[in-house]
Amino acid sequence: MNLSVDQNRLARALDDLAAISEAPAPVVTRIVFTEADLRGRAFVKKLCAEAGLQIREDAVGNTFARWIGVEPDLPAVGTGSHIDAIPNAGRFDGSVGVLGGLEAIRALQSSGYRPRRSVELLIFTAEEPTRFGVGCLGSRFLGGNLGASAGKRLKDRDGKTLDEVRAQAGFKGSLDGLVLPRDYYHAFAELHIEQGPILEEKNIGIGIVTAIAAPAAWRLMIEGQGGHAGAVLMHARHDAFLAAAEIALAVESAAKSSGAEDTLGTTGVCDIFPGAINSIPSRVQLDIDFRDIDQARRDRSLHHVGHAIAGVSVRRGVTVHREVLNADPPAQCDPLVTGALTRACEKHGIAHQPMISRAYHDTLFMSLIVPAAMVFIPCRGGVSHRPDEYSSPEAIAQGTLVLAEALADLAG
Amino acid sequence: MNLSVDQNRLARALDDLAAISEAPAPVVTRIVFTEADLRGRAFVKKLCAEAGLQIREDAVGNTFARWIGVEPDLPAVGTGSHIDAIPNAGRFDGSVGVLGGLEAIRALQSSGYRPRRSVELLIFTAEEPTRFGVGCLGSRFLGGNLGASAGKRLKDRDGKTLDEVRAQAGFKGSLDGLVLPRDYYHAFAELHIEQGPILEEKNIGIGIVTAIAAPAAWRLMIEGQGGHAGAVLMHARHDAFLAAAEIALAVESAAKSSGAEDTLGTTGVCDIFPGAINSIPSRVQLDIDFRDIDQARRDRSLHHVGHAIAGVSVRRGVTVHREVLNADPPAQCDPLVTGALTRACEKHGIAHQPMISRAYHDTLFMSLIVPAAMVFIPCRGGVSHRPDEYSSPEAIAQGTLVLAEALADLAG
Repeated sequence: MNLSVDQNRLARALDDLAAISEAPAPVVTRIVFTEADLRGRAFVKKLCAEAGLQIREDAVGNTFARWIGVEPDLPAVGTGSHIDAIPNAGRFDGSVGVLGGLEAIRALQSSGYRPRRSVELLIFTAEEPTRFGVGCLGSRFLGGNLGASAGKRLKDRDGKTLDEVRAQAGFKGSLDGLVLPRDYYHAFAELHIEQGPILEEKNIGIGIVTAIAAPAAWRLMIEGQGGHAGAVLMHARHDAFLAAAEIALAVESAAKSSGAEDTLGTTGVCDIFPGAINSIPSRVQLDIDFRDIDQARRDRSLHHVGHAIAGVSVRRGVTVHREVLNADPPAQCDPLVTGALTRACEKHGIAHQPMISRAYHDTLFMSLIVPAAMVFIPCRGGVSHRPDEYSSPEAIAQGTLVLAEALADLAG
Repeated sequence: MNLSVDQNRLARALDDLAAISEAPAPVVTRIVFTEADLRGRAFVKKLCAEAGLQIREDAVGNTFARWIGVEPDLPAVGTGSHIDAIPNAGRFDGSVGVLGGLEAIRALQSSGYRPRRSVELLIFTAEEPTRFGVGCLGSRFLGGNLGASAGKRLKDRDGKTLDEVRAQAGFKGSLDGLVLPRDYYHAFAELHIEQGPILEEKNIGIGIVTAIAAPAAWRLMIEGQGGHAGAVLMHARHDAFLAAAEIALAVESAAKSSGAEDTLGTTGVCDIFPGAINSIPSRVQLDIDFRDIDQARRDRSLHHVGHAIAGVSVRRGVTVHREVLNADPPAQCDPLVTGALTRACEKHGIAHQPMISRAYHDTLFMSLIVPAAMVFIPCRGGVSHRPDEYSSPEAIAQGTLVLAEALADLAG
């Protein structure tokens, strides 16, 4: 098999997809089920159709594009990622795994190789938690982590249900039965930028992910008492925002004092109601994200945060309602897939090393139903979720080459 | 003069105005120059026209409704307040002074009294700082506190200039020359709910305001560094929101430690960018409101806050840009007007007491060009800027009666 990745075609496709955004370049903002997301999906599906892939979509918008194998009844080999992007994001997170996955299939097609098992590209719905507060929405359904009844309760910030929003985007049908059967896939591999500095610092082309950190997310609704900023004396206040400020600092403190640098705690959302300069905040929504590669350590840290919340609540006379958005176990990647990725690197003489993913990805939930792993490529300064996120065309093409070799290895 | 306030008519007018809101009852939200504000203005102007008042509007939408006196060339006597309301407000703040002022004029008309000086009702534009960050927009122009060039720089949260927004609302023409001549008014009196608990607690019907607290407001733009919540280690972060949290707590601490309960510090706005659960906050807008009846003490407290900001900035590696939205001196009310209000209470045997206004009002800026004072009525629990804000129809009618007597006294 003479495998050749078309680096220019891949770079062009990434350019074209990056231009589909709610915000002007270089910013990419593509929130799930907005017009930009739907245009992005249409763009990718067109490329898939041009490559002769057979396309289907499920009720939540997960898109499957299949290159039919010689033995189409065998469990398939999957690859893919997401195209949705948080506000003010860059152009590589997710997109590299979707368009790189497609380019891997096209490279295999051009090489004359015919797969025994079908090879399928997956575009997951809403890997980013921006809209519904829960990350990896699509892969949670596929992996059986999220069921129809929990899905029905999901709402976006405007109070619209997932059912309303997906119907408006053209995705109808029941949320029951989205979970994939255990024999649907033989193996799954996701290509992604590292979102960390290690590969770049060590000048290593490929990271083979052996474990994915365990994320947990809480949404706090803090209820205090409002009033006129000029009228309520300081000692009589129950300011929901000051309670939120203390809690956010407690999140930082719990993460910093865990004893391991892999413990990360972030408060990324703080919505104040009513949100006027001369009005005491009466209500705050605070979204907290906690991660660790060690679940027990992560849960100990969260316990400290919970303790701090209780103290703040009593001291300030506010009530805090806590909703656990998710609390997932970490994933161990499967030797079947890491082995294929390692062999691919060795075949092409590409420097590689095992890694842990601190960020979580759709592969975390795919690993519930299929042997899965990820392949990382370097990104500049480890920067991600920002417009200056960057991976070179060469690095992307190299990751795509490794992915293609591994897919062929796994598909037989 | 046999003066009689029509309590039912006044209560009905307040009902009707409260129904004009961006949010469903009992919430009143009426941001300046929105459709709700424009409908509110139309409603009040219609009532003024029915009372035979002569109406004019200036370039920023301040509305003047004049009952022509016997000697129309003499400086007039003014009264009035505002109808704009912050998000999630109640129905009495401002509206009582506008509709009570109008009812005072109508009561005087019905009594057969003919004023020597003209009596003018004023509806000030944007007393609330919600949209442009600066409170008492209209009265600042009238009092000469805000000039055309500063006014031209004002923008709302969406980046629209005051000029754009007022033009769209139908208010055109230059912002130059909005300031009222010193001989325009002989005296000015504003009726308002107390927004504090004192009158209710003491069961006193009328507060006669002798001084208005000095407000100051800062807008901070905090710039840190964003990134993926799962990828940037804690020690490498420059989280703009955690800096904001520390600053908000420093505001509280500075207000609490001033040594006087009249020092009030509030952080009512905290807008996070990008505002996603899995993204480290890179930028935050923080709006801070500081008040005191003692300007020097207020400025000492603000100095402490400035010191805290500098420390947070260095320690967290974030930059903080500070814009002083306003820093006004307190106002002493004028004995000409407080005397007339006191005589009115005594004439009708109404319990009254001198008070200080901790909240600021349009009268603060009117006092720059005219002898001015305010009359307060009790409100339940001292609650304001909330949907459960409440003053009884009897209390409102009594305040209106006192206002009408004083206007007649001052108009001659």
